[in-house]
This record gives sequence, structure tokens and C-alpha cells, in this order.
Amino acid sequence: MTESSANHSVFPNPEDPRLTTTVSGIDQTGICVRTNVVTERPLTLYLNAQEIVTLMTIGDHPQALGLGFLLNQHMLKPDDTVTEINVDDDLGVVVVRTARQTNFEEKLKKKTRTSGCAQGTVFGDMMDGFDEIQLNEAARLHTSWLYGLTKTINQIPSLYLTAGAIHGCVLCCEDRLLLYMEDVGRHNAVDKVAGLMYQNNISPEDKILYTTGRLTSEMVIKTVQMRIPILVSRSGFTAWGVDLAQQAGLTLIGRARGQRFLALAGETRLIFDAEVKVGSHES
Amino acid sequence: MTESSANHSVFPNPEDPRLTTTVSGIDQTGICVRTNVVTERPLTLYLNAQEIVTLMTIGDHPQALGLGFLLNQHMLKPDDTVTEINVDDDLGVVVVRTARQTNFEEKLKKKTRTSGCAQGTVFGDMMDGFDEIQLNEAARLHTSWLYGLTKTINQIPSLYLTAGAIHGCVLCCEDRLLLYMEDVGRHNAVDKVAGLMYQNNISPEDKILYTTGRLTSEMVIKTVQMRIPILVSRSGFTAWGVDLAQQAGLTLIGRARGQRFLALAGETRLIFDAEVKVGSHES
Repeated sequence: MTESSANHSVFPNPEDPRLTTTVSGIDQTGICVRTNVVTERPLTLYLNAQEIVTLMTIGDHPQALGLGFLLNQHMLKPDDTVTEINVDDDLGVVVVRTARQTNFEEKLKKKTRTSGCAQGTVFGDMMDGFDEIQLNEAARLHTSWLYGLTKTINQIPSLYLTAGAIHGCVLCCEDRLLLYMEDVGRHNAVDKVAGLMYQNNISPEDKILYTTGRLTSEMVIKTVQMRIPILVSRSGFTAWGVDLAQQAGLTLIGRARGQRFLALAGETRLIFDAEVKVGSHES
Repeated sequence: MTESSANHSVFPNPEDPRLTTTVSGIDQTGICVRTNVVTERPLTLYLNAQEIVTLMTIGDHPQALGLGFLLNQHMLKPDDTVTEINVDDDLGVVVVRTARQTNFEEKLKKKTRTSGCAQGTVFGDMMDGFDEIQLNEAARLHTSWLYGLTKTINQIPSLYLTAGAIHGCVLCCEDRLLLYMEDVGRHNAVDKVAGLMYQNNISPEDKILYTTGRLTSEMVIKTVQMRIPILVSRSGFTAWGVDLAQQAGLTLIGRARGQRFLALAGETRLIFDAEVKVGSHES
């Protein structure tokens, strides 16, 4: 598949009845109301014959989520040949099959031994090779693109607007949205983007990744591992996220709301081509 | 210690220089600015001689975080005698020692075998005994308390106001804040509350837990396991979170902003004693 398939944009489908549930409750006046809430369902991921993980997800794009998780955990190499992806919706299972034989028995064991079963462990493995990654210096972010993108993302139909309580992750090229994925966890949303990039052979070098979540160390590491040179969020930063972005030369933009933003790393890729209203205040 | 020690309130300390770092960047006008961002540092938790987990945390209240993590993961029983808690700030280590001998080698192994190393695993263990828990039916939430609490939480000095990108979790009694903990992950914040409740012998039966995070399945499970009958958030709901709250009889209040809120479970504990302005809209 060629890069031109990137024109095949994928957006949220808030009309999909599997993604939300209507529940009843009462509001502040004591009146009975009905509202939409997002669903969470377990998806168990197998790589060939091996059970890898059970993810809590809204349930759309299970193939992309499975592929993206494996890629971002370095269990699938970019040059691996994926021979088949089977999804069983009833069982909540996705099976990714590769030409190469795989066995992560030792890797899964090692995680437990080093630091138990929380974020820290996944994190440890994810840093592999981080220092050697060269992000594309020539990539640019025009402030006019940034303002256009954040406005479009806030207005395009989404589960966020329909039901709230969900994270979004959007792959963009210049001022265009290519892939807009949502999920209960922001890591699932970014993994789905990684999976779709792999499936559609979308090159990362000139892309911009937008996330609704905070710019933590893990989000920075994933973006760098995906070779995307620019990361934008409407939320804020953590010190380690900023530090890692500076080390990797990632352009890190946070608190992007209205016409305001803050760049704390890789500022050289920014081009100030939009007029900024004097006295504009953060919402 | 008696319940009266609950008067010993604990609030955020945004002045603590270890919790934020000042970083430089540029804003939307290209001008160089300095801003505060929250720190993240690894804290490795030992229970007696065994390494349990490495947590990413802002670093305050390490004893409470270690205790609360162990309690919420059922590695420490409420009737266990904690003989010593040692913290080494330089090494980033907290060691909890108990009178009872402990060994979670099998438990840690089992997690890996069943579903790898992500949320799903921790979750599986956390459901143990969930069905048997009886929350206090007599607890009440007056809407006047709710409006007072959310207003106070939004105005009291915090890392959230100083640096953003942080979650808060507040244990309340009627209209008073008892324990206000913040951390990069909302699960650390709620674990710190659990640890401080244990250390100060604070009873959960009449308390209200407020979280800035979403009302997901994991947050509902932790609140129920902590025997707190009322959970409030300014964020939204997930379907499974609502379902579990209904099963457990937990009062679940979300989207609490200004004078608005939505109760999707346990509505019988609500007392509407505040006047609601007609036509008030969500911010």
C-alpha cells in the first residue's frame, strides 16, 4: 500500500450503537434523565499461540488496537509480515499471526520480576532504543495549522461530544485530520493510531500527533518510538515528559486552547504564520 | 488512634519545591516564558523482603502511597500490623514491614500468566470479594455539601492550580475536606488517601470521595473496596463504572460542575437541600 492511502481518513463513529449505552439517573433537580455513557469491554490479545494481554477498550478497531499494542511494545517489528488478524467479537479476542515465530514467555516473566505489574514495567521495556531514534528535523508545525486542527477536533462529531469520559488521539498532516481514534484509555487511542498507520503504510516523518491527554513520559516515549516529530495536547505537561521530549528533539506543545499554547521542546519546528489576537486569554 | 484524628486534615502543598520544576519554552507569540510543571519520579515499593512494584509518582506522602497501594491490591489486610515503614528519598524506595510474614511470589506470577502486564490484570485481582461488600445505606449526601465541596476544591491552593496536569482525590465528611491528595496518576492519589485513612484510623462509612478523574470501573471498584459509600467526580462515566456502582449500591455522581450534576447509581442517599438556580448551564 502506498502513502496515498493516507487520504483514506478514519474518524469517530458516535452513531455506532456498540460504543455507547443509554443509562438512567437523576440530575441536580431530582428529575429523571437518560444519558449516554461510553462502553468498556475486555479485549484479549494473542500473538500467534501466546496470550499477551487483556485490554479494556470501547471495542472499535480491534485489529488496529492489537497491532498497535504489539508494535508499541516492540513485540511486533516494523518489518514483520502479518499473515492474518482474526477478531471474535463475541469472545472479545483478537489474534495476530506473523510469518516469524514469536515467543515472549521470557519477556512477560521478566516484567514481573523487575517491578511487578504496573505502568513502570511496560515503561522499562518501551525505552529500548529510545536514545538512537532520530526524528525528522525538517518537519514543521505552522501555527495556522495548529489553530485549524484544534478547532476541527473540538467540533467534529465524536464520542467525546456525545458521551464524554473518553480520550482522543489524532494523526494529522499539515492542517488535515487523517486518523482520529478514541478510547477509554489514551494509550489504547494512540495504539489504534499506530496500528492504522502500519496497516495503511502511513509514514510518520511529516505528521503531527494530537492527544487530549496529558504530556507524560509514556506519551512522549510512544510518540518518539512511532517516529512522529510533533506532539500536541490541550492538556499540560509533566517534568519527565518535557525532559524526554528535549532529549529526543520532539516538538512538544501543551495547553493548546483557543489561540494559546506553550512549546517546551523542539521549538525550532514551529512557524508563526497565524495572527495572534492581542489579549486573548486561556479558556 | 481515634476517629478524632480525622480533624488532622492534609492538603496539597504547592510550595514544596520537590513537587514542581520550572522549565523554559515559548508561547503562542514566540516569546520565551517560564512555567511550572509537576515532577514524576519512580518509587519502588517493597513489602518486607519482596519487591512489589515501581510507581511513577510526584513523590509526596510515600508512606501513605505504599500502604494504600498494598491495601487496595489486597496485599495488606486491614487487620495486619505494620511494624515499620522506611523511606529512602535518594534511592526512591519505600519498605513496608509487617508482623505477618508475606509472600506474593505466586500472586505476581499469576498476573503475568493470565493476562500479561496491563490494567486488566490488576483489575482481576481487585474484584476479589467485591460482591460481598455492604456499603453503609444510612450515609447521606446533601446537595448543599456537594456544591460547597466542589467550590472549595476548585479554589484551595493545589498543584493543579499551580502546574496543572495532575489528578486530585479528596476524602470529605459532610461539607468538610479531610484529605486532599494529588498525583500524576489518579490511582496514586486514591491510594494515598487509602494509606492516610489507614494510618489515621479514619472510618469510611460516612465519607464522600471526590475525584477529578473519570468514573471508570477501576475507580468504582477501589471506592467500594475502601468501603466509601459515595463517589463524586467533575468528569464523566463509563458504562461499566455505572454498572458496577449499581451492583454495589455505591452512590455515583458525575459531571459535577457548578450547580449541575448527574447521579447514575445509589440516588437514595441524596438529599436535595440546596436551591438550584433555574436555567443554570454547565460550564
